[in-house]
Amino acid sequence: MPKKWVYLFNEVELAEAYVGGNWDGVRGLLGGKGANLAEMARIGVPVPPGFSVTTEACNAYLAESGAFPEGMWEQEKEALKTIEIATGKVFGDPHNPLLVSCRSGAKFSMPGMMDTVLNIGLNDETAGGLAKMIGDERFVYDSYRRLVQMFGSVVMNIQDEKFEEVITATRRDYGVNVDSELPADAWKKVTEKFKRIFKHYAQMDFPTDPYEQLHLATEAVFKSWNGKRAVDYRNAAGISHDLGTAVSIVTMVFGNMGDDSATGVAMTRNGSTGEKQLEGDYLINAQGEDVVAGIRLTKDLSEMKRDMPVAYREFEEVANLLEKHCRNMQDLEFTVEKGKLWMLQTRDGKRTAQAAVRIAVDMAEEGLITREEAVLRVAPEQVDFFLHPQFDLKAVEAAKAEGRLLASGLNVSPGAAVGVVAFDADRAELWAKEEGKQVIMVRPETRPDDVHGMLAAKGILTTRGGRTSHAALVARQFGKPAVVGVSSLIIDLGRRRMSVKDTIVHEGDWISIDGTTGEVYLDKLTTTIPDIKDSWLIKLLSWADEFRRLGVWANADYPRDAKRARDYGAEGIGLCRSEHMFFESERLPFIQKMIMTDFPIERREALNSILPFQRDDFAGLFRVMDGLPVIIRLLDPPLHEFLPNHVELMRDLSDLKIRIKNAGNLSDIDDLLQKIRLKEKILKRVESLREQNPMLGMRGVRLGIHIPELTMMQVRAVFEAACIVAREGIKVYPKIMIPLTSHVNELKAQRITLEAEAIKVMNEQGMEIEYKFGTMIELPRAAMTADKIAEHASFFSFGTNDLTQTTFGISRDDAESGFLVEYLGSGILPDNPFATIDRDGVGELMDIAVKKGRSVKPDLECGICGEHGGDPKSIMVCHELGLNYVSCSPFRVPVARLAAAHAALLDKKA
Amino acid sequence: MPKKWVYLFNEVELAEAYVGGNWDGVRGLLGGKGANLAEMARIGVPVPPGFSVTTEACNAYLAESGAFPEGMWEQEKEALKTIEIATGKVFGDPHNPLLVSCRSGAKFSMPGMMDTVLNIGLNDETAGGLAKMIGDERFVYDSYRRLVQMFGSVVMNIQDEKFEEVITATRRDYGVNVDSELPADAWKKVTEKFKRIFKHYAQMDFPTDPYEQLHLATEAVFKSWNGKRAVDYRNAAGISHDLGTAVSIVTMVFGNMGDDSATGVAMTRNGSTGEKQLEGDYLINAQGEDVVAGIRLTKDLSEMKRDMPVAYREFEEVANLLEKHCRNMQDLEFTVEKGKLWMLQTRDGKRTAQAAVRIAVDMAEEGLITREEAVLRVAPEQVDFFLHPQFDLKAVEAAKAEGRLLASGLNVSPGAAVGVVAFDADRAELWAKEEGKQVIMVRPETRPDDVHGMLAAKGILTTRGGRTSHAALVARQFGKPAVVGVSSLIIDLGRRRMSVKDTIVHEGDWISIDGTTGEVYLDKLTTTIPDIKDSWLIKLLSWADEFRRLGVWANADYPRDAKRARDYGAEGIGLCRSEHMFFESERLPFIQKMIMTDFPIERREALNSILPFQRDDFAGLFRVMDGLPVIIRLLDPPLHEFLPNHVELMRDLSDLKIRIKNAGNLSDIDDLLQKIRLKEKILKRVESLREQNPMLGMRGVRLGIHIPELTMMQVRAVFEAACIVAREGIKVYPKIMIPLTSHVNELKAQRITLEAEAIKVMNEQGMEIEYKFGTMIELPRAAMTADKIAEHASFFSFGTNDLTQTTFGISRDDAESGFLVEYLGSGILPDNPFATIDRDGVGELMDIAVKKGRSVKPDLECGICGEHGGDPKSIMVCHELGLNYVSCSPFRVPVARLAAAHAALLDKKA
Repeated sequence: MPKKWVYLFNEVELAEAYVGGNWDGVRGLLGGKGANLAEMARIGVPVPPGFSVTTEACNAYLAESGAFPEGMWEQEKEALKTIEIATGKVFGDPHNPLLVSCRSGAKFSMPGMMDTVLNIGLNDETAGGLAKMIGDERFVYDSYRRLVQMFGSVVMNIQDEKFEEVITATRRDYGVNVDSELPADAWKKVTEKFKRIFKHYAQMDFPTDPYEQLHLATEAVFKSWNGKRAVDYRNAAGISHDLGTAVSIVTMVFGNMGDDSATGVAMTRNGSTGEKQLEGDYLINAQGEDVVAGIRLTKDLSEMKRDMPVAYREFEEVANLLEKHCRNMQDLEFTVEKGKLWMLQTRDGKRTAQAAVRIAVDMAEEGLITREEAVLRVAPEQVDFFLHPQFDLKAVEAAKAEGRLLASGLNVSPGAAVGVVAFDADRAELWAKEEGKQVIMVRPETRPDDVHGMLAAKGILTTRGGRTSHAALVARQFGKPAVVGVSSLIIDLGRRRMSVKDTIVHEGDWISIDGTTGEVYLDKLTTTIPDIKDSWLIKLLSWADEFRRLGVWANADYPRDAKRARDYGAEGIGLCRSEHMFFESERLPFIQKMIMTDFPIERREALNSILPFQRDDFAGLFRVMDGLPVIIRLLDPPLHEFLPNHVELMRDLSDLKIRIKNAGNLSDIDDLLQKIRLKEKILKRVESLREQNPMLGMRGVRLGIHIPELTMMQVRAVFEAACIVAREGIKVYPKIMIPLTSHVNELKAQRITLEAEAIKVMNEQGMEIEYKFGTMIELPRAAMTADKIAEHASFFSFGTNDLTQTTFGISRDDAESGFLVEYLGSGILPDNPFATIDRDGVGELMDIAVKKGRSVKPDLECGICGEHGGDPKSIMVCHELGLNYVSCSPFRVPVARLAAAHAALLDKKA
Repeated sequence: MPKKWVYLFNEVELAEAYVGGNWDGVRGLLGGKGANLAEMARIGVPVPPGFSVTTEACNAYLAESGAFPEGMWEQEKEALKTIEIATGKVFGDPHNPLLVSCRSGAKFSMPGMMDTVLNIGLNDETAGGLAKMIGDERFVYDSYRRLVQMFGSVVMNIQDEKFEEVITATRRDYGVNVDSELPADAWKKVTEKFKRIFKHYAQMDFPTDPYEQLHLATEAVFKSWNGKRAVDYRNAAGISHDLGTAVSIVTMVFGNMGDDSATGVAMTRNGSTGEKQLEGDYLINAQGEDVVAGIRLTKDLSEMKRDMPVAYREFEEVANLLEKHCRNMQDLEFTVEKGKLWMLQTRDGKRTAQAAVRIAVDMAEEGLITREEAVLRVAPEQVDFFLHPQFDLKAVEAAKAEGRLLASGLNVSPGAAVGVVAFDADRAELWAKEEGKQVIMVRPETRPDDVHGMLAAKGILTTRGGRTSHAALVARQFGKPAVVGVSSLIIDLGRRRMSVKDTIVHEGDWISIDGTTGEVYLDKLTTTIPDIKDSWLIKLLSWADEFRRLGVWANADYPRDAKRARDYGAEGIGLCRSEHMFFESERLPFIQKMIMTDFPIERREALNSILPFQRDDFAGLFRVMDGLPVIIRLLDPPLHEFLPNHVELMRDLSDLKIRIKNAGNLSDIDDLLQKIRLKEKILKRVESLREQNPMLGMRGVRLGIHIPELTMMQVRAVFEAACIVAREGIKVYPKIMIPLTSHVNELKAQRITLEAEAIKVMNEQGMEIEYKFGTMIELPRAAMTADKIAEHASFFSFGTNDLTQTTFGISRDDAESGFLVEYLGSGILPDNPFATIDRDGVGELMDIAVKKGRSVKPDLECGICGEHGGDPKSIMVCHELGLNYVSCSPFRVPVARLAAAHAALLDKKA
């Protein structure tokens, strides 16, 4: 007996037994589409009768260079007979013709890559008979010409233009613009012309024998597995070339056979809100195409209840069944042919972030899925949706249609923002604070002294910079929507305007920016505001917390950020950048004084003036984080960042010199001269601090060693604050962190300075504060020598931004608007390593650091405080490497909680 | 019977048996000094009779808090009796008194850390007797007062100033300036005063009993082991605290007992030239101090042959014996007391580089040592001496004495150079070429377009930059002496002069710079010129070649460098920096054109113009390296390096704009306008190429990917050159190397471009050239993913300069004149990682890279072409890591050959 090459949809058990009982094997044998239809058939869902020719048949056919394997064609014909019986229709019978489609279906979906032929079984006779049956000649001959056309192009490789040219000419003849306006006789004529084209190019008549049609179509599908498009696709997608394709032969059903016929699409739950309610659109006496194309006005599915109650009830039951069976919200396609319901497709339905959360939680509570599954059903990025205003989708579509999309750039901080353009930080702040305006701050790029404007603005837009530019970092930190690196936008600060080609936007004009997509629009777009307090989300996150192993901490510099982080579920502060506080306007002068002076006494005086500010900041943080750890990183950035910009200084100086020329009286001149001298002094210092590669220069621990008084002041502020707050009854766990360590001796040296000061303060205060001393691991050398470093550190925190820069030898400031874009575009790099941890390089170094560190201190606490700490893919890596926690911006905390749960659950699975 | 605590010098066999037969144990028991004297005694060398009290006795004394262990004192007295018999003198006998010294001697030398008491045995009676015997009252009472003083300060802890005050007062009384002018009666008085001081502070009379003196001195030496100075020293030097010190009691001998007495020092071979000849200085009727202090004019040792032939003959025999026994050139101290020779010390003699080489080779040929030992006897750095002119030592001393040492900086390229100061490259070249002057080029720092001046100059001096600054790299490459980073030197380019404090040097003044020491002198110093062709050196290096496992290649960009490298023994070119050729004046315009244009055709034209130059350069290299491999690295530096400096452009532009204001006629204005437009265009491009951290920017393979035409041109030049040269019958082995790879995909992409072009050229030429394709490993990520990279590279070459920068996160340009200096000064870093490979960090990454690379390709060729390739300590690391070769500047090749042999021999030993 020959091998079984053909499986009817209701023979799925046989197929399953043949492959050894696993569903993956069934998909491999029958293809995804065939398996899906068979599965529906198995659970009693009415699918149009049909069968699949196996992938094994395809492979055998290709191996024997074009001969069907023994018995296959006979089995195919046999299966067709069974279908005839099931449908009561007969293949080739003019009075009640059976029509079938012949589709490819591989194990993995390869959309559009292989061939399909519809309407097999039509010829002059059956077309005439069918037209009479359904009373729609136009539809029948349109179908018929499609068969000829598909057959010609797919099976016979005739150029499709040859056919299309005829349709174009016909439209012209009939004086119509679209195909749907052509009447039945036009399609009849087209069909005849197509048959002539077919004969001319294929050197044979169009086969009128339905069996011949089926035979040729089956062969064509088999061959299409090795077509160039399909091979290229598989190469790109990494799909094996020896899988082969199955061929599914499915009965054509028609929703346009009268008023007892219909067709429609539905979702088992609301895809926008997640509400549990069957929703959809349908049309009576219509084809599926009509619903999708939107040519006819569809009816709401609820009306079907009234129009065809029996079919509706059956559909409702089927929908329920499928959702239960698939354990997910389903997107369904169906047709009712003369009162009989046929399901054509079921698949997991697309949904908004909000719906995803609600559906997952509801299904878990309904007992349909487990809580673990519910947590895994929501992508971590979807949580972000709840944290930021979003543009209304319709408003976005409308704006695009109206040509109001001005430009796009990097989507570095999610959310939608609307405001008037302000071109500098001072104006942004003035307009926002004093005039109550909503402002979008627009700059070529931002610097630390722009922060007050950024805080006052609703959103930030820059033309330069990348994902980790100052603008991006600050925006994410404060949850401000931001788009950066919009290189097509030209800012003319002189004229206070910006432009893209001919479109000019003046300061004060309204724009809307979408930090989620990176798009910039003219004028205002309406926004909607989701909410983290969504009860389904809160439930989902609480489940996630039960599953995750990683702690989730936050990077926060100010009490208000720490408060938000804690509200969002952060379990500690993983990074307080103590220098951010220095940029505030009342403190900056003291910092500048400290940098400018050559005298130790003046330096100490300046530091003493900063001390109370730092102490208050730290105290505030400790109060908010009562009972939780707070990691304070000592000063990190190069000192020149605290001084004015070099170019600006030059300009100011030249302005002053011009003014002195025009000055009228001696006291003015004297005044100006003094100003010039001061500026010149600052300029000199700025020049002396200048470095070729500041990223690799005098910063981090190098500063602390160079100016021990700075370390001492910061440590004093930490411990004075800790003592004050502890006296209030608050539990305080300060952890002091050294940045940019490359050699353990740096740590040793700082530790001596630091511990002496800490003990001094505690003695003064008469209190004992429990504290920890640790270091950033952000240089390859620190990772490689982590065992030595661990001897002097009780915790590690990976600074993966800098670690990525040094490991790759990439300056992010330059590269993210430069060659990195080229690399990502051409696929040299699969991911932006500043967005997602580079597992092979940076990840390996982290792995070494964790292992070496714990070889010395088995319970060494390891965390991450780089930007990657909020990126789900990177969180997966952190879990894998055995870190204790991730620390990210407050706004990413909920995302990270979910991602950490994903990591733990997927780890458990594997 | 009590334990043996005391060993006479001639009881060394007993000591050796006691410790189990090893010399290390003997040193541990008797101390270094005691063991050395005993060893001389053993082989029959006349040493003053004496004995050692063991370290065990010391430990027992310290453990029992100040009691001599049982039997020790009795043994000590017993030993003294034996000495009395040997010398015919008696301890405490006024007529023929025995005097002894009592010295500490630990296993490891701790110079000056512990106590010594000389002249034990003197009291009023013995002093009188001795004075009569030697007829030199002055000497005897000086010795006596020394005993009282040492006893007071060492044994009784009396402040030494109390004694010194007396001497100062006595000098005043006698109206003399130095001690040596004080007469005998002055010393008699001083001795009496010292005894009174002793009594006052020690609350006891100065002990007149020699045995009491010896008892107290022995105790004092024991105690000094735990003195603060000694403990601190051991902590710093890592010497164990439980070793204890031995006490050596040695008969005092006197070379000032008449004309049959003498004292002297000698070397068994000439310490400057290495010639085999006993040389030294001596004085009849004198003390050792007199020879060393240079108060009296010494006689040449050869005269002793005539003056005291018997003693001389004996001394000659002893010297020979000691050299043979110690198997090294010896530095000897001796005294003849009344015709009797006594050896006081023998130790390995110091020698110049030249002498070290000759002595090692001679001794091997004499059969005294093996060739392996000979190779290990010469420090690799000593070879460098033969490659560069050196300042005459006396000239240096004289210059320092005259206050002509102007400043000092980093000694980045060895050798001495003398010339007139020129403050820019053009003037340096002009003066050197057209006026035939010797020039020292002096700049704040150098840039690629200064190279012509550097080549024309005899030496280079800069005030900024570090060990791997441009100036340092180029200087080493071309063997030009250079001193950089002389921060105390202020250059005033406006006035064409430089100064250190008040000393001003004008352009055209003579200076001398020493690249070996980093010193800068005013005026001319005389130089001497050693030679690599020194026959002893050639022999030594040929032996080294037999022992080493590492290959030694050279970094060379031009045929002339390759020639030198090959002459010095290089076995290949490990790095040809193909871009260096671009800086030559006839090529730079084309490179600039390529960078400036926006049009692909113009770019290709520019590249085509460069092609013939590159082809010729490569052909030249291949010819010189006939039969040896040549690694050509594709373009590496950022493009802005080929364009004019930003600040200079700004200045030029403002100059032009001023000139246009003053221009008289229209055609002048037109001309100036055109120039302005061109400069503005260049300025714009320079600004667009500007990067925050150029070290981490658009360079290396990133350039090759961005501008594939550049890679294609370079590859074409390589293969056209290879074909041309191969046709001449020369064996050519080109290897193409990609710089700055961080991801294997970069390599894959370049390989495709490159191989296509290579095949194209070979087809055009109708020839097949064997070639290899490889990559630099100079980023941590490349090291971490070396297994993946090795799949597409047939060789690795470690670029340890950049690897060190990225591993440490240090920009060498900034740091070597900045915080790195601070770090090295304070010991945070033990070595400059840009001079010597950081084994723990960078070395670990290299280790990973070699292992991962060879896990994929077991015979992967691994080399190093960073600056470290010529550093002996780093070569040791390269050997350990299993590299195939080191590549260094041609001038370092001989050094590297010797260092590689050292590595192999030390490895074999261990």
